[in-house]
Formats: sequence, structure tokens, C-alpha cells
Amino acid sequence: MPSQPSRELQHFANPHPGRDFLIHMDLPEFTCLCPLTGQPDFAHFLLDYIPDERCVELKALKVYLWSFRDEGGFHEAMTNRIADDLIRLLSPRYLRLLGRWYVRGGISTDVLVEHRAPGWDNAALLQQLGPASFTRHQPGY
Amino acid sequence: MPSQPSRELQHFANPHPGRDFLIHMDLPEFTCLCPLTGQPDFAHFLLDYIPDERCVELKALKVYLWSFRDEGGFHEAMTNRIADDLIRLLSPRYLRLLGRWYVRGGISTDVLVEHRAPGWDNAALLQQLGPASFTRHQPGY
Amino acid sequence: MPSQPSRELQHFANPHPGRDFLIHMDLPEFTCLCPLTGQPDFAHFLLDYIPDERCVELKALKVYLWSFRDEGGFHEAMTNRIADDLIRLLSPRYLRLLGRWYVRGGISTDVLVEHRAPGWDNAALLQQLGPASFTRHQPGY
Amino acid sequence: MPSQPSRELQHFANPHPGRDFLIHMDLPEFTCLCPLTGQPDFAHFLLDYIPDERCVELKALKVYLWSFRDEGGFHEAMTNRIADDLIRLLSPRYLRLLGRWYVRGGISTDVLVEHRAPGWDNAALLQQLGPASFTRHQPGY
Amino acid sequence: MPSQPSRELQHFANPHPGRDFLIHMDLPEFTCLCPLTGQPDFAHFLLDYIPDERCVELKALKVYLWSFRDEGGFHEAMTNRIADDLIRLLSPRYLRLLGRWYVRGGISTDVLVEHRAPGWDNAALLQQLGPASFTRHQPGY
Amino acid sequence: MPSQPSRELQHFANPHPGRDFLIHMDLPEFTCLCPLTGQPDFAHFLLDYIPDERCVELKALKVYLWSFRDEGGFHEAMTNRIADDLIRLLSPRYLRLLGRWYVRGGISTDVLVEHRAPGWDNAALLQQLGPASFTRHQPGY
Amino acid sequence: MPSQPSRELQHFANPHPGRDFLIHMDLPEFTCLCPLTGQPDFAHFLLDYIPDERCVELKALKVYLWSFRDEGGFHEAMTNRIADDLIRLLSPRYLRLLGRWYVRGGISTDVLVEHRAPGWDNAALLQQLGPASFTRHQPGY
Amino acid sequence: MPSQPSRELQHFANPHPGRDFLIHMDLPEFTCLCPLTGQPDFAHFLLDYIPDERCVELKALKVYLWSFRDEGGFHEAMTNRIADDLIRLLSPRYLRLLGRWYVRGGISTDVLVEHRAPGWDNAALLQQLGPASFTRHQPGY
Amino acid sequence: MPSQPSRELQHFANPHPGRDFLIHMDLPEFTCLCPLTGQPDFAHFLLDYIPDERCVELKALKVYLWSFRDEGGFHEAMTNRIADDLIRLLSPRYLRLLGRWYVRGGISTDVLVEHRAPGWDNAALLQQLGPASFTRHQPGY
Amino acid sequence: MPSQPSRELQHFANPHPGRDFLIHMDLPEFTCLCPLTGQPDFAHFLLDYIPDERCVELKALKVYLWSFRDEGGFHEAMTNRIADDLIRLLSPRYLRLLGRWYVRGGISTDVLVEHRAPGWDNAALLQQLGPASFTRHQPGY
Ligand SMILES: [Ca+2]
Ligand SMILES: [Ca+2]
Ligand SMILES: [Ca+2]
Ligand SMILES: [Ca+2]
Ligand SMILES: [Ca+2]
Ligand SMILES: [Ca+2]
Ligand SMILES: [Ca+2]
Ligand SMILES: [Ca+2]
Ligand SMILES: [Ca+2]
Ligand SMILES: [Ca+2]
Ligand SMILES: [Ca+2]
Ligand SMILES: [Ca+2]
Ligand SMILES: [Ca+2]
Ligand SMILES: [Ca+2]
Ligand SMILES: [Ca+2]
Ligand SMILES: [Ca+2]
Repeated sequence: MPSQPSRELQHFANPHPGRDFLIHMDLPEFTCLCPLTGQPDFAHFLLDYIPDERCVELKALKVYLWSFRDEGGFHEAMTNRIADDLIRLLSPRYLRLLGRWYVRGGISTDVLVEHRAPGWDNAALLQQLGPASFTRHQPGY
Repeated sequence: MPSQPSRELQHFANPHPGRDFLIHMDLPEFTCLCPLTGQPDFAHFLLDYIPDERCVELKALKVYLWSFRDEGGFHEAMTNRIADDLIRLLSPRYLRLLGRWYVRGGISTDVLVEHRAPGWDNAALLQQLGPASFTRHQPGY
Repeated sequence: MPSQPSRELQHFANPHPGRDFLIHMDLPEFTCLCPLTGQPDFAHFLLDYIPDERCVELKALKVYLWSFRDEGGFHEAMTNRIADDLIRLLSPRYLRLLGRWYVRGGISTDVLVEHRAPGWDNAALLQQLGPASFTRHQPGY
Repeated sequence: MPSQPSRELQHFANPHPGRDFLIHMDLPEFTCLCPLTGQPDFAHFLLDYIPDERCVELKALKVYLWSFRDEGGFHEAMTNRIADDLIRLLSPRYLRLLGRWYVRGGISTDVLVEHRAPGWDNAALLQQLGPASFTRHQPGY
Repeated sequence: MPSQPSRELQHFANPHPGRDFLIHMDLPEFTCLCPLTGQPDFAHFLLDYIPDERCVELKALKVYLWSFRDEGGFHEAMTNRIADDLIRLLSPRYLRLLGRWYVRGGISTDVLVEHRAPGWDNAALLQQLGPASFTRHQPGY
Repeated sequence: MPSQPSRELQHFANPHPGRDFLIHMDLPEFTCLCPLTGQPDFAHFLLDYIPDERCVELKALKVYLWSFRDEGGFHEAMTNRIADDLIRLLSPRYLRLLGRWYVRGGISTDVLVEHRAPGWDNAALLQQLGPASFTRHQPGY
Repeated sequence: MPSQPSRELQHFANPHPGRDFLIHMDLPEFTCLCPLTGQPDFAHFLLDYIPDERCVELKALKVYLWSFRDEGGFHEAMTNRIADDLIRLLSPRYLRLLGRWYVRGGISTDVLVEHRAPGWDNAALLQQLGPASFTRHQPGY
Repeated sequence: MPSQPSRELQHFANPHPGRDFLIHMDLPEFTCLCPLTGQPDFAHFLLDYIPDERCVELKALKVYLWSFRDEGGFHEAMTNRIADDLIRLLSPRYLRLLGRWYVRGGISTDVLVEHRAPGWDNAALLQQLGPASFTRHQPGY
Repeated sequence: MPSQPSRELQHFANPHPGRDFLIHMDLPEFTCLCPLTGQPDFAHFLLDYIPDERCVELKALKVYLWSFRDEGGFHEAMTNRIADDLIRLLSPRYLRLLGRWYVRGGISTDVLVEHRAPGWDNAALLQQLGPASFTRHQPGY
Repeated sequence: MPSQPSRELQHFANPHPGRDFLIHMDLPEFTCLCPLTGQPDFAHFLLDYIPDERCVELKALKVYLWSFRDEGGFHEAMTNRIADDLIRLLSPRYLRLLGRWYVRGGISTDVLVEHRAPGWDNAALLQQLGPASFTRHQPGY
């Protein structure tokens, strides 16, 4: 069953649009290129969202992440761009995307983007998420 | 002592209905079928609730989870459905159900549902729960 | 120095009643009987409280927990009962008791009881406690 | 792409039969039935082997494990049986199978089976495996 | 389904007596009495054995451990005694029993007993066990 | 360079009094005597504070803790007393002291004291501290 | 590609100034000198910030930290100074800098500085950071 | 400083060829393509070796791993191939390569290759390596 | 029940002298004085032994360790001396003592002493001990 | 009490030369320069040795490590050189030095050197060391 990288994200209808609920997806397989050197960069993404009418389709999401394999992008810009694509697709009530980028120059960098639909709030449910899981880097250990 | 899978949940009377208190149940033994491929899916459920008049009976809960063994269901829909069954049985003051579904396509997916009885609140006690324990996926490690 | 199990809890005078402060006690040695089967049950209790005029005496607390060794009780009722005994003894400004009961039927159950003295509050100090440490059950691992 | 449970394991040709090397597979998705009560049992299997002419095909292995879903078997017998099927398929130089079965009666049980081809030895490579990863059970914690 | 504590261990026939294989049982629910003070002692037992003709029956083992609930015994003597009972029952090819006794006087004590059937050896399989999992005590942490 | 135990704490001028900032000190080396038995007690202290005009001098703090080596004191009283000495020395904007006392009678006890200067507040900065790190006691493990 | 230590921090333009988002940088490679003894000191810095118009350039940040290699400074003053330099460079909406300094005199010291742009607030996003990761020091373990 | 993927590994002269010593390199950034589906695969490699006359150059190793980015290969064949390239380059006294491949079909697969120069041995030094660090996969946790 | 520090260790008769078995004692409460500065030193001791005719009595061991509270000694000499005292008392078949001394000068030091009775051996049982648990020091983390 | 970096290591007389015993020193504070770029490198060293007539003096060791602060050296050469200096100073029965160098180019490198005095052996004691603690690198986590 071969497939192709594709920038086309797909969705399915939220099965419980009447209730705010949380979906967490752990996306450890991401690589793109450094826009300065052309060398590979790697990241582990963590996505959390509260769907409104749409949920992101898992296989299309995998293929979408694949589509950045030959594309350059800075950590800060790339993380914002992926978040924007997901927000455009889903119009979610809430979305949080954390990119944990691998060590460069002895320094590890994480980028966290958050989005809330205008006029929507559910502070109680959002407390369930807890703080984002930033990298804990222990070199020499 | 053979038993049967059963969709019938059972309850017993809350021994301390005059006090809000929390019950946490860790339910690591769940399997159902993927509605697309018919292949087995696995999940680890975590349930927290504040009982009103009723508490869920442990053995019936085990048999209830067993009853999904040959049934298909998407992660998002299945987690919402089990939460709904528990809410209908217990009419709890508060209920939280987290389904941590095993990796598919290199991506792990968790679904979190939360319910509060209308008109009830106890923010102090709910802070005791802390954020839900979402999957931490470390492939290649 | 033999001793006896005793339901008599004892206290000593709070050495600093003018200040709200927290006492945490980790009580991993508890066993009672299952009221249905008569078989032993085990639990690990965690107690946190802010004393008013009285602190619980450590050796008497140990002997008190011992006194349940031959007594039957459901998890939910037993945890509430021990909390009630401590509240009656101490009239504390705040008390939290977590019972982490060992696995039965593949399911582990925790019960959390919380108490605040009427009219007392100290939200800042209570934030020091953090969420209760519920069981993290990893069967097959 | 629906598929079926199947007791038929499949192999592919070892790409480097001239060298002893180790393959480790982590198989956390297994369930069968208790032969006494008919209730579901769960286990996490860990497989290590040194192939001779054949390697086990991953998708067929998944479908093979699925085939025990409606079958009864004691922990000790089931673990030996799966090991025997793999040995029959692969005629491996070495094979080790650990079954970590979930808690029953407050007790967790692991079963470890090991096989060496007659006349074959490679003590140096086998030291790479280290001791098997038996369950570490922490109830009430 | 009430039951009784009983010193009678029970066995079932080893389903694969033609092969040396390992069984690991994690037994965290044990309590007896201190022979000096009469106060409760607690221990977590870990059993590993290679069966010959017999395997120990899980429910009888649970009931056997229960039978020490009202009996006094020093850590060293009690651990040796339970090992002796299991050796007498099973005549195993190999058996290892570790008793991790809870802290007394700020000191935690573990006792490890090992047995090999005369004339039997299987060094390769025993390496699978790895060193025993002695307590790691971190007071004040 | 010999030195002496001394109850004299010393301070140095806060280098940035214009800003609220946090200082955390981990003090694992403390011992005093049990006032009932005269036997040694041990504790691990954790100090967090927001300085006003003064910061505590590290070497004098070490020598101060040493000065309790031959002095008796109950856990609750001793922890409050050390906190009081530090508050008197520093007149800090905020101070938190946690004493994690080693296991006695199978029970570990922690004592937490918190102080805020009257009229001072900085809720945002205090959230940086998180809940205090109470003992996690795992006997038999 | 040799380079030089330099006190000149550099920035690049924030690619998404229209959105508040978080950048976390883990900086484990820092050393300076003790102003009293001239001996080396070591620290692990953790930086979190919400950029306004500027982001700190990673390689210049590395070279900037290098520039303190031969300079003396007390823990409290040095941490505040580095924070001030970053605040001056970035004029960030929010910045948090934690310095975890290695053990001296058996005591480990952490210093935490926090800054918010006047008139800016985003409590929801700041909750994503969670409490700062203070040192957990376990000597003798 | 752009660079190119290159299959050309490079070496530098071992600075201490008179002594057997160990070099460990942790290589978490690897991706290639699945030869069946064309989709990306990811792996974390761990390399240990005892150099003879040559050591592998770090930057060339990084660029070499990059060169597989657009190439297909089965886990077992790819791991053997990379080991073969390193053996050919280095003619090492000893080499061990572990490929920890990310989860596919709910199963994680590791491949371990080991090489010893004919006629060379140093059992004492090889014991320093310990068993290889195979994946520990905890789905649903 | 006050007691006194005492250099007099005490023993009780080994209840199973006919069998080699292991006793592990975790002794985290030790302090003495630095012979150069007179300042307190702290250590965590771990004792393992195979008794011959005698076992060390727990309370006397505690009081014995107490007796070094006001005595000076270098880490290497003190650890050897305590081992010698235990060997003299017990004439054990085997004994291992590890002293994990707290950080001084940014460096943590452990000292390990091992003793075997002349003419005694039991390699199989000693493998159960595994390597000693040396300190893992993580400053700045 | 200022001091100076110095290449002069110092020793004191082994207090128990009649016995083989182990000394472990954890040396997390090391920095030197990269010989290619002149930029700082960092490493965490772990030293284990069995003294013959001499033990290394702790403060001189600290000052010796300091003396490399402005010196260039490749990881492999620097680790061998420090080991050689210690061997020359101590003429130890056994010595093991592990250098865990911080991440460069996304790759972490460890170097392990081992030395045995000619004609000396004590396999039993060396087993106490266990395998060296190589870095476990988890980028993106
Ligand atoms: Ca971090
Ligand atoms: Ca990391
Ligand atoms: Ca996660
Ligand atoms: Ca849990
Ligand atoms: Ca275990
Ligand atoms: Ca477990
Ligand atoms: Ca231990
Ligand atoms: Ca605790
Ligand atoms: Ca502990
Ligand atoms: Ca800490
Ligand atoms: Ca594994
Ligand atoms: Ca994993
Ligand atoms: Ca260490
Ligand atoms: Ca440590
Ligand atoms: Ca570290
Ligand atoms: Ca590693």
C-alpha cells in the first residue's frame, strides 16, 4: 500500500460535537531541513486540541508531516506554520502544538503555539492538559 | 466461577453521600476492534469520579469493559460512549475518563472526556486530581 | 516493648498554633479484610493536614492503623471512616487522606477524602500540596 | 484494508545469514481467555532471537497473536506454545520469549522460555541481551 | 466466594516438563507479626523458579501467604521458612525467593534464599534472571 | 580551615533588591536528636525564598544547621524554629521551608512552613515554585 | 570555523509577532569564576520567553554564554545580569531564566528571575510553562 | 556552511593505538524509507567500538547517516549494511551497532550487530559495555 | 526508651546456618566528622552479607553507627574500619560494604570494601547481588 | 582562600594497602576547548580505581581538572591523557575513566579507558563495578 507525501490534511466529523472533549496526539516522527545549511533537522511534536465540527484524520496527518521532509524552515516559523494549517483545517475550539527540536549547538529549543476560538472558553477542561511537556536536556548524563 | 461479558453496569449505594470525595480507578485491560480494518485495538482507561448517590461496582465494570471485545469503534467515539454509559449509571457529581489508545501509524492518540453535574461545583476538590496523565510516547528509546 | 492494637488515637499540642503549616505523613503499612470474601486487603495511605490545636501522635497512629487488621470494610467506606476518626481527633484546619488500594480484578482503586474547617481558608498554603499522588498502574510492565 | 486473524506465521529470508545478529521485538498487544473462567487475560510479550535462514514477518506475527483472542490457555502453557510456534517457523539459532501477564489475585506472573539450536553457540552475542525484563509490580504506588 | 487462610500449598502439573523455563511471581501482599513486640511486619516477596514436575497454584499461594498474618517470625527465619515450604512442594530445578521487609529503626532489610536441585544445572537460563531486585531506600527524598 | 558550629546566621546584601526573584537551596545534610530517646534524627531541608534587602550566606547557613547536631527537638517544632530564624535574619518577601524527616515507626513525616511579608504579594512569581516536593516513601521496593 | 567569545547578543525578527507563543531553550553549558576564590563555577540555565519583535539568535547566545568563562560573579548577581542582558536585547513580552548552580558546601543553589512587559498579559499561555524545574539534589544516592 | 549528504565516511588516526579503549556514540537522528510503502522510517542508532588504527570522524558520520534519507531498506538489512560500512572504514578491534526502529503495526523492532577482529580479544574491556539498551516500549502509558 | 551510642555490635544466631543466604541492609543515617576541618560529613551505607554462625542485630547496628557521630575519619579509612568491625563480629562467609559519601568540592566519593571467608565460595549466590549501587551524581539537574 | 589551576596531582597514602578496595569519584565539572574551533567543550567524568600505595587527593584533583580550562584537545585524546596522568600518579591496581562529552552535531560521544597493573587481578571485586554508565541521549524528549 504505497502512499505519497501530501500537504492536504483531511478531517472527519466530530462524533460528539455537543461536548467539549480533548484529543492528544503524540507525533515523534518529524524531519525537515535547516534553511541555512540544508542539513536535516528533527523534531518531536505534541498536539492537543478540542474539536468543534472536525477531527483531524490520523493517516492524512502522518502524510502531511511527511511532506516537510524536503523543505527548509526555522524552528519558530515551522512550528507556527504547522499550527496554522491545523487551525485552518479544524477551526478547533482549542489547539496547542509543541515542537521539541533536537539539540543544535549544545542547545535544545522547543516552540509552543496555542490557539482558542474567539468567544469560546472552558477553563475547567483546559486545566486537564497541564503544562506543556518541554524538553529536559541532560547532556553528559 | 465463569462469567459473561455484559453491557449491564451495576452500582452500589455511596457510603458517604454527605461528602464530596474522589474515586480513581485504573483500567488497563481494554480491547475492541478497529471499525475500518476489523483488527484489534487496545487502550488503557483511567476513570476519576465524585459519586452522588451511586458508586460503580468493580466486577460489573470489568465485565462491561469486556463486552466491547468484539465491537468496532473509533477512539473518539468509543471513549465518549463509555463515559456516557458511566454518567447514565452514576449521575455523578463529577466524572473524568481518559482513554490512552495504543500507537497506530507511529502516532499515539488519547481522548479525554469530562462531565460535571449541572449546578454542582467543588473547585477545591477537583484541584486534587491534577492534570490528566496523557501518554508520553518515546519511540526508539 | 510489646504493644496492642488500639482504636484510641492520641494527640499532642501543636507547637505553633499561631501559624498555618502543613504536616505530611506517608503510611504504607495498612491491611484490613474484604467484607465480601474475608480475604486480606492492603492499602498505602497518604495523610496531609494543617493542625489547629492538636497534632496526631505518630506511635498511636501506627497502633490505630493496626487495629483494622481483623476488620472488614469496603475501600470507599474504610477511607472515609479513617478520615472521620482523624478529623474528630484533631479538628484540623485542613485534612486530606488518600487511600491507594492494591489491585483487585485487574483494577486498582484509590479513594481521596478532603476536609476543611468551616470558616477557615488559606488557599496559598494549600497550593503547596499539589494534586494528590494517585496510583499509576503499569500491568505487564 | 481488512485482515483476518490467522495461526499462519510467515517468514522472509534472513538478509545476512552469514552473521549472527539479534532481533528484538516488543509485542504489547496480546489477549486470550482464562481457561477456568472464560474471562479475558492480557499479556505483554518480548521476543528476542538470532535468525538462521528465516526472519519472522511483522504483519503476520501481529495477525498470529490476534488469533489467540478467543482461545483459552494457562499462562505457562500459552507462553510455551507461542515459543514453540516461533521455533518451528524460524529454526532460529537462538530465541527467547518473555510473557508478562497482568495481575491476577494481587500477584503478577511472568513466564520466560529460551531455545538454542543444537550445536550452535555464541556466548558473546548472547551477553548483549542482558537479563530478561521481568515485571516490576508496585501496587499501592 | 469466601475462603480461608491455609498453610496447604497446592500445585498443578508442569505443562512443559521437557524444557527448563522460568516463572516469576511478584507477591507484594504479605504481613506477619514481629516476634519481639507482636506488632505487624510487612514484606514484598519476589519468587522465581524453574519447575520440574510441578508448578505452584496461584490462589493457593495467595491463601498460604495469608496464613502467616497472625504468626510471629524474624525476617531471616521467615524468609527461609517460606522458601523451604515452596521447595518441599515443588521440588523445583531452581528457586529464588527475595523478601523485601519494610523499614525498621531507619534500616531496611532484605533476605534472599536460593535453591538448586542437586545434579541439575542450566547456567544459561539462570543468567536470564539477573541480580535480585534489592530495596533501594531513599529516606528524606 | 577548621570552623565551629554556630547559631549565628549571616547575610549579604541582595544584589537586585528592585526585582522579586527566587532563590532555592537544597540542604540535604541535617541531623539533630530525638527529644524523647536522645537518638539521632535526620532530615533533608528544602528552602525557597524571595529576598528583600538580604540574602542568606551559604557557609554560615551550613554552620548554622550544624549547630543543631547535639540538640533535641520534635519534627514539627524544629522545622518551625529554623524557619523562624531565617525569617528573623532575612525579613524576606517570601519564604518556604520543607523538612523531610527520615522514617520512624514505618512512617515518614514532612513539615512545611510558609511565610509572606505583610502587604507583599507576587502571585505570578510564586506560581514558579510549584507544589512542595513531599517525600515519596516506597518501603519494600 | 573558529569563533570568539562575545558579549554581543544578536536577534532575528520574530516570524509570527501577531501571536503570543513560547520559546524554551535548554542551556546546560555554562561556567564562570567564583568571585571569592577564583575557582570555576558551573551552572545549567533554562530560558523561556514569549518574543515580541525579536528572537534571540542561537549561535550568538552560545558565544555570549562563553564570554563569562573568565569572569567572576555571585550566583544571584550573575543570573540577574544574564536575564537583564536578554531583556535588553529582546524586549520580550515575557521572560523566565532559571540558573541551576552546581553544589557548593554540600548545598545546591538555584536562582530564578522572571520578567513581564509592562501592560502585557496572557495568563493562559503562561500556564503552559508550569513551575520552574528546580534542582532535585540526592547526595549519597 | 551548507553541506551535502555523502556516503563517504571519513576517519582520523587513533590517538592511542597502543591501548584498547571504548568509544560510544549516540546517533538519534536517522530516517530512511520503507521499501514496501515508500513511507519514512525512523531509527535511533547506538554505536560502540574499540578503534584499531582509525576513529570515525563525527561530521562525516552525520553526513553519512543523512545519505540514507531517500533510500529504501528493511530494518534488518539496513542495520547490517551500516555496520558493514563502519567495519570496512575502521577495521575496528570491536564494533557493536544497535538500531532501535520506531513502532510499526504496534510492534517495535531493534536490530543488533556485533563484530570482532579475528584474533583479537579483550573480554575485560567488553564487560564495560554491558548489555545493549534495547527499546522499552510502553504503549498506553 | 532512651539509649546510648555504643561501639559494641551484637549478634544473634543464624537461624539457617546450613544454607548460604544473603542479607541486605540499607543504612542511610550516618554522620561523622571531617578529620581536617572538624565539620560534619554524611554518608549512606549499604551492607550485604552471607552469614556463617552469626547475624548482626539491627538495633545494636543502629547504635554502633551512632557512635561515630563525634569522631573524625577520612572516607576511605572510615569505610574500611566499619567493614573490619562487622567482619570481626560476624566472621561472615561474605560481606560487602559500600559507603556513598556526600558531595565535597563538587565531587562525590564512594568507597567499596569486600570480604570473603578463606576457603569459602558460592559464585552462583554472589551473582544475585549484582554490581554495587554507586552514586549517580547529577549536579545542575 | 583563592587557589590556582595546577597540573600537579597529589596523593595520600592508602590507609588499607593490604586490601583491594574500590574508590568511585563522580567529576561532573570539566571544560576544555575544541582544538578545531577554540570553542568550549564540556564533559562529565566518572573515575573508579583500586589503590595500591596511593590515593588521589580530592582538592588537587579538582584543581588539576581546572587546569584544562584553556587547553584544546579532542575527546579521545583528552580522556586518554587524563587517565595516563592518574595512572602515572597512582600506579593503581586498577583504574577506569569514563568521559561523557556533551552533544556536538546532534551526536553525543563517550570515551572509556581502563588500566590494570601488570600481574594483578581480582575479578571478583571488579564485578562490583558493573558496566560503565554510558550516556543515554534522548533528544526531542
Ligand atoms: Ca526543560
Ligand atoms: Ca533530552
Ligand atoms: Ca504525551
Ligand atoms: Ca493512575
Ligand atoms: Ca519483578
Ligand atoms: Ca507494575
Ligand atoms: Ca538498596
Ligand atoms: Ca508522599
Ligand atoms: Ca523514599
Ligand atoms: Ca529541589
Ligand atoms: Ca524492550
Ligand atoms: Ca517507549
Ligand atoms: Ca556514579
Ligand atoms: Ca546523587
Ligand atoms: Ca546532568
Ligand atoms: Ca547511551
